[in-house]
Amino acid sequence: MNIPKKRVFLIGTSGTVGSAVLTMLLEREHDVASADFDMGDLRIDITDSASIAAAYARVGEVDAVVCTVGVVPLLPLHETTLAHVHEAIRGKLSSQIDIVLQGLPFVRAGGSFTLISGIMSRMPWQGGIGASIVDGGIEAFVIGAAAELGRDRRINAISPTILQESVDKIGTNLLPGHQPVPAAHVAGAYLRSIEGIETGQTFLVGH
Amino acid sequence: MNIPKKRVFLIGTSGTVGSAVLTMLLEREHDVASADFDMGDLRIDITDSASIAAAYARVGEVDAVVCTVGVVPLLPLHETTLAHVHEAIRGKLSSQIDIVLQGLPFVRAGGSFTLISGIMSRMPWQGGIGASIVDGGIEAFVIGAAAELGRDRRINAISPTILQESVDKIGTNLLPGHQPVPAAHVAGAYLRSIEGIETGQTFLVGH
Repeated sequence: MNIPKKRVFLIGTSGTVGSAVLTMLLEREHDVASADFDMGDLRIDITDSASIAAAYARVGEVDAVVCTVGVVPLLPLHETTLAHVHEAIRGKLSSQIDIVLQGLPFVRAGGSFTLISGIMSRMPWQGGIGASIVDGGIEAFVIGAAAELGRDRRINAISPTILQESVDKIGTNLLPGHQPVPAAHVAGAYLRSIEGIETGQTFLVGH
Repeated sequence: MNIPKKRVFLIGTSGTVGSAVLTMLLEREHDVASADFDMGDLRIDITDSASIAAAYARVGEVDAVVCTVGVVPLLPLHETTLAHVHEAIRGKLSSQIDIVLQGLPFVRAGGSFTLISGIMSRMPWQGGIGASIVDGGIEAFVIGAAAELGRDRRINAISPTILQESVDKIGTNLLPGHQPVPAAHVAGAYLRSIEGIETGQTFLVGH
């Protein structure tokens, strides 16, 4: 069975996950429009609603919207303030939800959204409290949204553990004892969401 | 074994759950300081950081902080805007996290926090997308925070299904086919959190 080529709007290509997803999408010969905070033709700041709107206006209709980015401050609970919580929410939770809400008119019937979550929704780590909040929010959002998207459209979240590429750079102290996964495995989970038929799921990668 | 009497700061007493929790705490002869948006001596608006700070300043040190309230707009996904998402987050997610962050200096060693979540983090319901987001965030926050509170302090979330008292008022259309639970069962879950030894958990009530 041939997988039909899809037009994919990929948000985030300069990060470890984003570049691995881009590589895999191009290998699969999908038609990729990409946007990044730092590089490429189309710039996007996902914390800025107007920036998301401008990106959709340029990209137009697609079969898949894929987000690989989110920024969350890393702080111990006892140093966390409400401002940090809002920063985390803006950086990865409400921003990704905004990508979906604004994307509804642009995603074709049978299309999909794929968002980024993370292991912190399911386990504690010193410095990870902001990530816990937003990852938990994303995973529950995906459950709720899947039932309401309509027109056979789907939505999933990808929850990677720590990346091999991160361990190579910063060592194992971040998640001691955890087995890291290569970004290519995370990209595989994105592909599973984009080309598959599942919806309302969080795909755990390496945990 | 006698359960030691605790000083409990109960936030929200006028709602169905809050009044059931208050009744149970008084039956158990705990020393309750309560605050509510609508009634009683001590008023609190949990979406206002200064209001939370003022309440803690008046209540002082406690063994347990208990929140029974959160307000989330009910809207279908396709009518939801980023402003609604922020309203939901402010009404039940960041507000409850603020209660914990500001409460850290006021909760004694061995004490606890108990927050309110809800069934929407695990199942979709038309109109429940805002609740999904915030309930998921609360449940993951509780996992992360439990590991960092220190001084043998605990934190849990309570996730009720629809209340019998709500069904009596508005019928069964909200969650068709679900078996409602009386608020007294939800209050029991709060007591399990306040008097028990569990932490980092979400107690499901009726689902």
